[in-house]
Amino acid sequence: MNNPQELSVKMVLDVWNTQLNRATALVENLTEEQLQKEVAPGRNTGVYLTGHLIAVHDAMLPLLNMGDKLFPELEDTFIKHPDKSGLEKPSLKLLKQYWKELDTKLATNFGKLSAEEWFQKHNSVSAEDFVKEPHRNKLNIIITRTNHLTYHLGQLNLLK
Amino acid sequence: MNNPQELSVKMVLDVWNTQLNRATALVENLTEEQLQKEVAPGRNTGVYLTGHLIAVHDAMLPLLNMGDKLFPELEDTFIKHPDKSGLEKPSLKLLKQYWKELDTKLATNFGKLSAEEWFQKHNSVSAEDFVKEPHRNKLNIIITRTNHLTYHLGQLNLLK
Repeated sequence: MNNPQELSVKMVLDVWNTQLNRATALVENLTEEQLQKEVAPGRNTGVYLTGHLIAVHDAMLPLLNMGDKLFPELEDTFIKHPDKSGLEKPSLKLLKQYWKELDTKLATNFGKLSAEEWFQKHNSVSAEDFVKEPHRNKLNIIITRTNHLTYHLGQLNLLK
Repeated sequence: MNNPQELSVKMVLDVWNTQLNRATALVENLTEEQLQKEVAPGRNTGVYLTGHLIAVHDAMLPLLNMGDKLFPELEDTFIKHPDKSGLEKPSLKLLKQYWKELDTKLATNFGKLSAEEWFQKHNSVSAEDFVKEPHRNKLNIIITRTNHLTYHLGQLNLLK
């Protein structure tokens, strides 16, 4: 594997997998009491960030043309509204179950794409715009979502 | 620009620049009082994380074959030792100056590399190993350092 296309896909997916595995282990290992706490005084709780990450990762499915969201109802609570919105949140047990289910779904679908397909357009860019902006491809979604995940991982780690 | 090599370099450098600009703006805009605070109770201070990021980014220079570190003395205080080591830290004013100087140096050097050169080996992998592991290239350093930066940016943002 020496061509830049395959190498780039490997590099990007490696970091995605590393960060996702770290986040999964953290969410698994923190106690319910730890996850109910705010990462810093007055900021988001671990539970909110867990739900937020699930909702953001779930939205990658339609964006990458991998089917519908598994948990569309999470968007309202964990993306459109802040932590202290008063909206009811799923139990932590349920969120952990969602997390695992989504991980499996994403990994299965990611594994099916060829390097060439990763460089094809994602679903929030038009064919016309993609001609002018070919960097708006599926792989770019993984790069930006990895950084989003890492950003919140830095915060979740403060709960330890 | 349609070849995967150039596209990958653009995608990776775009995210690096975005995150670095966010971090730069944050460090510039936080007051000295805010930066002296811990990001969460008992955790690293903003000043320590600022120094840590400078030290880690500075180490990219030799790693990417772009010359010696500008501030080698920072490694001991901000990488080898934790925040509360008792070691004397440079003033915040000086750290902000280092940050800018390093930003300019990195940007200048990054701008000189062709897409092809980004896929060449970095300096902590041997030529022999690089044949077997061609993903250990210069661009990969940017991917991992961007995530490192983003991780701590998530924490620094808690100081706002």
